[in-house]
Amino acid sequence: MLSISPLVEELVKALRVLPGMGPKSAQRCALYLLQQQREGGLRLAQVLERAMQRVAYCRRCRIFSDTDLCTICADTSRDSGQLCVVASPMDVLALEQSGGYQGLYFVLAGSMSPLAGRGPQEVGIPDFKTRIQDRSLQELVLATPSDLEGEATAFYLAEMAKQRGLKITRLARGIPVGGGLDHVDERTLAQALQHRRSWSESGD
Amino acid sequence: MLSISPLVEELVKALRVLPGMGPKSAQRCALYLLQQQREGGLRLAQVLERAMQRVAYCRRCRIFSDTDLCTICADTSRDSGQLCVVASPMDVLALEQSGGYQGLYFVLAGSMSPLAGRGPQEVGIPDFKTRIQDRSLQELVLATPSDLEGEATAFYLAEMAKQRGLKITRLARGIPVGGGLDHVDERTLAQALQHRRSWSESGD
Repeated sequence: MLSISPLVEELVKALRVLPGMGPKSAQRCALYLLQQQREGGLRLAQVLERAMQRVAYCRRCRIFSDTDLCTICADTSRDSGQLCVVASPMDVLALEQSGGYQGLYFVLAGSMSPLAGRGPQEVGIPDFKTRIQDRSLQELVLATPSDLEGEATAFYLAEMAKQRGLKITRLARGIPVGGGLDHVDERTLAQALQHRRSWSESGD
Repeated sequence: MLSISPLVEELVKALRVLPGMGPKSAQRCALYLLQQQREGGLRLAQVLERAMQRVAYCRRCRIFSDTDLCTICADTSRDSGQLCVVASPMDVLALEQSGGYQGLYFVLAGSMSPLAGRGPQEVGIPDFKTRIQDRSLQELVLATPSDLEGEATAFYLAEMAKQRGLKITRLARGIPVGGGLDHVDERTLAQALQHRRSWSESGD
């Protein structure tokens, strides 16, 4: 950045921490805030400071929360018999937005990856082990990513859940709703064929 | 946003103040900061707060600055005989990045627009009038936008500078360097034809 003032330069640099913020857009962003959004910028600064300092993890599902239990875990109307395991908080939001799930979650800190040094301990398996001891639990829904590491993690979790006698399910693989076959990759299409459902069954 | 915690929700809302930040990207951004950039997020919060509170305007050119004079105006190696008028701080940065200008600037608060309630007073003409009284000034470079309002503003400024006896120039219009003719709009092309330069002159 061409410097017009040390503090403006510092702001441009600090904005680069945001995802997808290159040098040019950080510059534009800084000037935009200074020019048109001083109050909004100040509010963002204050909320951001509080959030970075205070947001911890939900004691039960390990999603981000500034309260002991997150909003989802604290919601008694949800089905405590179902537990869905995901590998990132974003996945919880995606599932919530789908509106198709009323159970609870458990958020791993990523998939296990021995090469990257993420073993059972690092991704939070001990907490998961404690969590599935819950008496009310009946079904474990595996929703880890469908890559190699996610699949291996799912396998690992499934083994633990089997010992506990839980029903184990996983998200269906297949063709995205509204998608044409020519936009679907071969492996997805192969799975969609293999797990094809009878017409009468698919009408729900 | 589907709420997982009140503070995370507040952060997502506050992030929407940034340009181009929709609900989904604000969500992603908040989770990314919480997950991977707590320190960077905290630093951004602190710099942002200071910037929103302390960055004012350079006394001389009216660009954003947290010091009395901006870095450009305070640089004694620059040519104080040239003054370039722009309608936004972004334009100063663009001109600086071009590396083609060594004079000083004056930043208007936008072009004049009677319909939008931006008269001479609002865009900072009184300060401009004071600024061009500077004895060392010889040339005024007009670099307001090339739309109708920008042109009208340039005309207005040129009239004032004429009375002061300054040399008045404006940025050349023409075909962008490296651009093919088929990508240039008709009006630009018409101006490029009208103001064509002799071959011997254009070799600089």
